[in-house]
Amino acid sequence: MSPPITPGEDAEATLLQGLYGPRHRFCPTPNPQLKVVLSLDREIDLVELEGICDAVGWSRRPLRRVRKALQNSLLCVGLWRHHPRLPRLIGFARCTGDGVIEATVWDVAVHPLYQGAGLGRQLMAYVLDELEQQGVERVSLFADPGVVGFYSSQGWQLEPLERRCAFWYAP
Amino acid sequence: MSPPITPGEDAEATLLQGLYGPRHRFCPTPNPQLKVVLSLDREIDLVELEGICDAVGWSRRPLRRVRKALQNSLLCVGLWRHHPRLPRLIGFARCTGDGVIEATVWDVAVHPLYQGAGLGRQLMAYVLDELEQQGVERVSLFADPGVVGFYSSQGWQLEPLERRCAFWYAP
Repeated sequence: MSPPITPGEDAEATLLQGLYGPRHRFCPTPNPQLKVVLSLDREIDLVELEGICDAVGWSRRPLRRVRKALQNSLLCVGLWRHHPRLPRLIGFARCTGDGVIEATVWDVAVHPLYQGAGLGRQLMAYVLDELEQQGVERVSLFADPGVVGFYSSQGWQLEPLERRCAFWYAP
Repeated sequence: MSPPITPGEDAEATLLQGLYGPRHRFCPTPNPQLKVVLSLDREIDLVELEGICDAVGWSRRPLRRVRKALQNSLLCVGLWRHHPRLPRLIGFARCTGDGVIEATVWDVAVHPLYQGAGLGRQLMAYVLDELEQQGVERVSLFADPGVVGFYSSQGWQLEPLERRCAFWYAP
């Protein structure tokens, strides 16, 4: 049996559902003042996303292209610092793919101010849980040298069957 | 100025357009009897595709899942042995992606009976031309050890910035 829900808890649940959608998930952090929420449904503010990309040192792209890329993604996940009126985007990840056999993870970022608290791992776990629920067989990503350990410690297989990654850049 | 089109050529062009769609492309081969055509538009027969996958040694998947994966792909390319009534599928490739920033190539295969005639290179060139026309910035793929040379000789960069590929398999 679930514990009884008090009126306050009920109002809080309604607020969170309204802000972050039905599939949101809390991220425990070492700081009790910091309430962080993962969401598949809350719309990503592109200017806030650009701020995170700047902070982690990625090159800028035209916002209209980013908007279209996000619209065409299989899923976009936002990591939010909770605030009842104005949640702030502090992390992000997205996937492309066919939603059945293959999905590929891109643009995994946590704002440097919020790194080191295990939020990146919780972000990736949330992405994989969602893809697994969709029935995707295999998920892939391209890891920069600095994050290879981050992924391999979470059950990702590095270069299985000695596969190598190759890129082609538009001229 | 284009050369004048004879009535026979005109009928042939109409036939080819009907079979393979407006964006088809001929593949020159060393054998003048063998007419091979690339198409983005001709519907892929899943049983024929399964035959190619069997011939190159890939494991089988349920056809309904393959159908859904193809429907959700950014593009699917068929390589056809031309016949006016019954073209035969002899090669295949597909891409997933957002169609703007990222595209990823999967399932590149040419039937072993038709390998060694440069058809795989022409298939890849066709895929990249189409993605470039769509305005995709970057194309990625995962190369098995045996085909690394095939891709690197066609302008693909192997592991740029020392990126490594990682895979996660659904339990």
